[in-house]
Order: sequence, then C-alpha cells, then structure tokens
Amino acid sequence: MYTITLLPGDGIGPEVIAGAVHVLQAVQEQHTGVRFVLREAPFGGSACDQTGTPLPEETLQLCLSGDAVLLGAVGGPKWDSLPVHLRPEVGALLPLRKHLEVFANLRPSVIFPALADASTLKREVVEGLDVMVVRELTGGIYFGTKHRETLPDGGVKVVETLEYTTAEIVRVARVAFDLARQRRGKLTSVDKANVLESSRLWREVVSEMAGEYPDVELNHMLVDNCAMQLVRYPKQFDVLLTENMFGDILSDQASQLTGSIGMLPSASLGGKVGLYEPIHGSAPDIAGQDVANPIATILSVAMMLRFSFNLPEAANSVERAVSRVLEEGYRTADIMQPGMRQVGTKEMAELIGVRL
Amino acid sequence: MYTITLLPGDGIGPEVIAGAVHVLQAVQEQHTGVRFVLREAPFGGSACDQTGTPLPEETLQLCLSGDAVLLGAVGGPKWDSLPVHLRPEVGALLPLRKHLEVFANLRPSVIFPALADASTLKREVVEGLDVMVVRELTGGIYFGTKHRETLPDGGVKVVETLEYTTAEIVRVARVAFDLARQRRGKLTSVDKANVLESSRLWREVVSEMAGEYPDVELNHMLVDNCAMQLVRYPKQFDVLLTENMFGDILSDQASQLTGSIGMLPSASLGGKVGLYEPIHGSAPDIAGQDVANPIATILSVAMMLRFSFNLPEAANSVERAVSRVLEEGYRTADIMQPGMRQVGTKEMAELIGVRL
Ligand SMILES: CC(C)[C@H](C(=O)O)[C@@H](O)C(=O)O
Ligand SMILES: CC(C)[C@H](C(=O)O)[C@@H](O)C(=O)O
Repeated sequence: MYTITLLPGDGIGPEVIAGAVHVLQAVQEQHTGVRFVLREAPFGGSACDQTGTPLPEETLQLCLSGDAVLLGAVGGPKWDSLPVHLRPEVGALLPLRKHLEVFANLRPSVIFPALADASTLKREVVEGLDVMVVRELTGGIYFGTKHRETLPDGGVKVVETLEYTTAEIVRVARVAFDLARQRRGKLTSVDKANVLESSRLWREVVSEMAGEYPDVELNHMLVDNCAMQLVRYPKQFDVLLTENMFGDILSDQASQLTGSIGMLPSASLGGKVGLYEPIHGSAPDIAGQDVANPIATILSVAMMLRFSFNLPEAANSVERAVSRVLEEGYRTADIMQPGMRQVGTKEMAELIGVRL
Repeated sequence: MYTITLLPGDGIGPEVIAGAVHVLQAVQEQHTGVRFVLREAPFGGSACDQTGTPLPEETLQLCLSGDAVLLGAVGGPKWDSLPVHLRPEVGALLPLRKHLEVFANLRPSVIFPALADASTLKREVVEGLDVMVVRELTGGIYFGTKHRETLPDGGVKVVETLEYTTAEIVRVARVAFDLARQRRGKLTSVDKANVLESSRLWREVVSEMAGEYPDVELNHMLVDNCAMQLVRYPKQFDVLLTENMFGDILSDQASQLTGSIGMLPSASLGGKVGLYEPIHGSAPDIAGQDVANPIATILSVAMMLRFSFNLPEAANSVERAVSRVLEEGYRTADIMQPGMRQVGTKEMAELIGVRL
C-alpha cells in the first residue's frame, strides 16, 4: 500500500493530475497486491485564494506523512503581483522542496522516436537523445540570504548570497554518479570554476568522489560552454550534474531540444518522500479546456513507481503504454502532426490506461 | 588619429589579431584622414609566462591611455592549475573589464545567409536571425565577495555574494534601450524575478525606464524560459538585456545557434575606452597553424570603428567585405562546406582587405 499526496495546483494542473490518477488506477488493477491511497491537498495560487497561504500547514503535513507527492503545476499571472512570500513559487514550491529535503532533481530529456521531427533542431542532431540532468535543488542562491538597502543617492542596493557546503555537493553528486553507472557511464559536472568560488569547491568535491566510481567517466564543463554544447552536439551527454541555478537554466534548455515539453517528467529525491511533477508550467491560457497533454505527469508517475515504490515492472509498463499510444498515432494538440489523430487530456489518459 | 592597444593573448589570439591588423591597415588606406596607431602589449597566460602576472601594470596603463582595445583570446589548459589570481580569466580579463569600466557587453548573434546551413537548428528556425545580447559586465556574482571556511565536520563552506545597485542597472539598461530603438524596437529583459531579489530590483528599474522609451516594446522573461525560447523560436528576439552571469550563459547559447562561432564579434562599452574581442576562445589545439578563422576579430574591428571611432561608413565597408568573401565561396576550416574554397587565417584576412 502506497500513500500518494496529490497537489493539483493551478492552471492545467488539476486536469493533468486527473489523467495521472486514471493511470494509477489502471496500474493498481493490473498489479495484484499494489494499492494506492490517494489524498488531495490545496497548493499554490489556488490554495492562496482558498486559504490565504500557498502552502497550508495541513498540506505540508500530508506531504510529509505520505510515501510520495505528485504535483501538477503552480503559478499564473493572477498571483504574480502578490507579496513575494505569498506567490506560488517562493511561498509554496521552494519551501515544499526544502521541507521534503529533495536535494536531487532528476530531469530526463528524451526524444520519443515518434516525435523526432517536433524538435527545432535537425533530426540527426537530436534523434536518440537521452540526457539526464541532475540538478541540486535545495541549496545555492535560491536559498541564500537576501538583503535590500537604500543608498545615499536614493537608489537601492541588493545583496544576496550563494552558499554551498561539501556535504550538500557530495549527496547530490552521489545520485548523479549512481545514475551514470546504471546508464551509459558518462558524467559531466557543470560549473563556472573559472569565476565562482562555490564552483571551485564543487569541482574539487566531485573530482575527489570520482575515485569511488572507476566505472564512470567524469568530465567537467563550464556552464557557458555547456549551453553551447547542448546546441552543438547534445548527444555527447549522458548525465549532467549541476548546482541549482545552472540546473534550472540548462534543464529547461535541454528539455526544449526535444521539441515536446509536454512529454517530460521529473523526480525530486533525497528525503524520505519523493516529489514528482511534469516539467511544463501551469499554462493558464489553456486551462479547463481538456486540451493539455497529460503525458509528462503520467511519466512522472512512472518515475514515482520506479524511484519511490521500487516497482520497475509497473514503471516500464507505463512507459511502454505511452510509446504505444504515440506509435498508434494519438496526439494531444501540443504535439499534433498531420495525419495523426488529435485527442483531449482525458482521452489520452484513457488510451494509455487500457494499454497497460 | 586613433590609438588602438592590441592584446593578442594566448592560443590563436596572435593569429587572429594579425588578420585584424591587416584589415585595419586596409581601412586606413581606403579612408583618407583616418590613421591608426597600434601598440601591442602582453596579456593573459603568455604575459604570465613572460612577466609573472597575466595583467602587467604597463599593459593596463597602455589600455587606459588609448582609444580602444582589441583583444584576441586568453586562456588554455597550461594555466588552469595556477593559483586563481594568476589565471588569465580572473587575473587578467575580469580586472581589465573592471578597470576599463566597460559595463555593457554587446554580443550580436547573426546568421550570415551563406552559412545558414551551418546551424544545428533547422534552416527555417534560424534563417535571418539577428539578436543582440546586452550583458552587464562589471557587476553581479562575478565581482562579489568570496568566502571559504572549514566546518566542524571537516567539510568546507563557501559563501559568495551577488550584488546589484539601481545605478548599475540603469546604465546598462540605457545601452539596451538605445540599441533597441535603433534596431527593431523590441527589448526583452531577462531575469529570475520569481526567486532572486536582485532580479526583482532589475525588473523594477528596467520597467520604470520604459516610460522614457515609448517607441521600444519592453517585455520581461525568466532566464529558464529564455533558454527554452532561444531553442524554440529564437527569431522572436531583437535585443536581450541581462545581468552578468545569465548573460554569459545565454549569449553563448545564442551564438551557437548560428553554427559559426568563428564569425561572431563583441564590444564592451561604457567607459572611456572600449574593449573589442571575438567571442570564441583561444583554441590552443589549432594555434600557430594558420587555420583559425579571423572573421570574428575582423568584425570586432568593425564594431570598434562604429562604436569607439564613430566611423559607420568604414564599419559598414568591413562588414560588406566579409559578406562578399563568403558569397564568393571562401571559407576557413571551421566553416568549410563542400564545393567551397578553403583558405587559411592570413589569406582570409587578405581577401577581406582587398574587398574594402
Ligand atoms: C518556479 C521556479 C521557482 C522553479 C525553479 O526555478 O526552480 C521552476 O523554474 C523549476 O525549474 O522548477
Ligand atoms: C573567461 C570567462 C571569465 C568569461 C566570462 O565568463 O565572462 C568568458 O566566458 C566570457 O563570456 O567572456
């Protein structure tokens, strides 16, 4: 029995979560002995509207007491002018990550053969792409001190800090080394060691750990060069490891290489409870219309089955079902191509469910 | 009479500078009344080898007393294990930028029609691309305090600061607004205002300035989204304005979209003396072989003629000569295509010189 806390959130969040729940139920029917207990909680902008805070205490407690959290999406223009601490990002998402202690954010960028032409990059450059970004998620400048003061000239000065410790680097690097070992054995650690002191520490710590992983080929790359290499020759990468801010930028760049962001899941690991969410946003413009692509959330469920519940068979069956549906020509609007059959959020989830 | 300080630097630096000098001399012959006084100074790794410091005091004084600086490239594995303050980047490049007070780094990403197929992106996505990145160059985390301490657990903690003031933001934003006004009238200011306090200040200051530029259409974009949009639909951008670290990453990503980094120049402006350099690195692997592409440095000369010397005619003629040479089918190795004629560094510079 696995207890999953559902945080539908804002925009298209509730719809893609409903799609994922449908698939979870199908998994339960297929796998005797596996049972999911689902409970839903308010989170993000909609929670702020309802309760006055984007991360209600009961929501946090529910998340901490379950086995895994499945998040839809948060945010939208509606909440962008609230005081910072009430906005969905700073008021809900960052503290949730911190409380769950999910320091390792895994973001696969994979090209589905059926969608290789959706990329803006030439087919030969991205065909077969399979990169895993491991992003440090609970440290760095996201969680440093922030200070604002008025200057004698009437202007403002802001000072904020970027902090990292050896221990914070070791634990996330270990996740990346372990993943590289299970994959193609290549780890690229990204930093800006020619300028940042924190990056020099990062490079020292990661280099030292390499001795424990003789089967993993480690190399270091500067972040600006990495942003270039992701355009020039993305297939050179297997696992990319990096600190929080660089990982935010590079993982979004990497996922856009696939041309189908609506397909890409993520897992945030490290604490007792894992956090799973699609990498796409809340897309308020298409919310409530049954057009959003639920596949990224459904593949986040597959990651949950694999990483939190140790059910690799069930995870594989979800991933296979997604591939089959695509091969049979079903598409949501965001990945629609001529000659394919367009379906809505709900129908896509149902098609995947019956193919498990 | 214009005095130019030449800093050939390391790797292919001396060769591409020699190519640019050839073109400067050709410009002088074509434009009566225009005279360039050139003086060369040691800088970077090679300066450290010769003098024990990567930025000798005489070099700095020469730079400060001239009208413009033309830099080749610095760095290489040879100097990567020196103490940080002796390395070419931290010991020479960053202090030179700071002393020259060149707070605005302009990096055009342009596709040359003759080279549209060199990009890894589909032709229709990049054809006609013309983006100008304006990067803040003398502030932010590059120049913050850096602190390293040993923790009770034996580990290390690093704390570094990211600082920005209203005045620093205003002066670089003004450069970007002015450029947007002369170009297609669109300015995209990039930040991470949903997380960073410095980005919130950045957004406030830039928004407030927009009132002075009713003819410029300003929008704000988060840095992670910008990294995606540069892959998804790069032609949406005209001028991109951003702080130092984000600008480092995004400008390299943007330049790689063109597929021909060997073609792209840069200008760093704001102080009395402008600094001009190709955006490519020192490429030690091909140094001394007369194969490097001198065009990025030659186009940096064009930017110098335009921005430091106010000689737009001369600048245009250099740019036109580069286009003509490409259209006639001449290529250096890095941009070689079937059916074209491959030439070396020197010959490429000469071909451009005679077409002025
Ligand atoms: C919403 C924002 C705070 C968040 C981040 O920057 O971490 C998002 O961009 C992400 O990558 O999950
Ligand atoms: C060499 C390095 C310090 C430099 C920077 O990061 O500014 C370089 O990458 C650049 O963009 O000019």
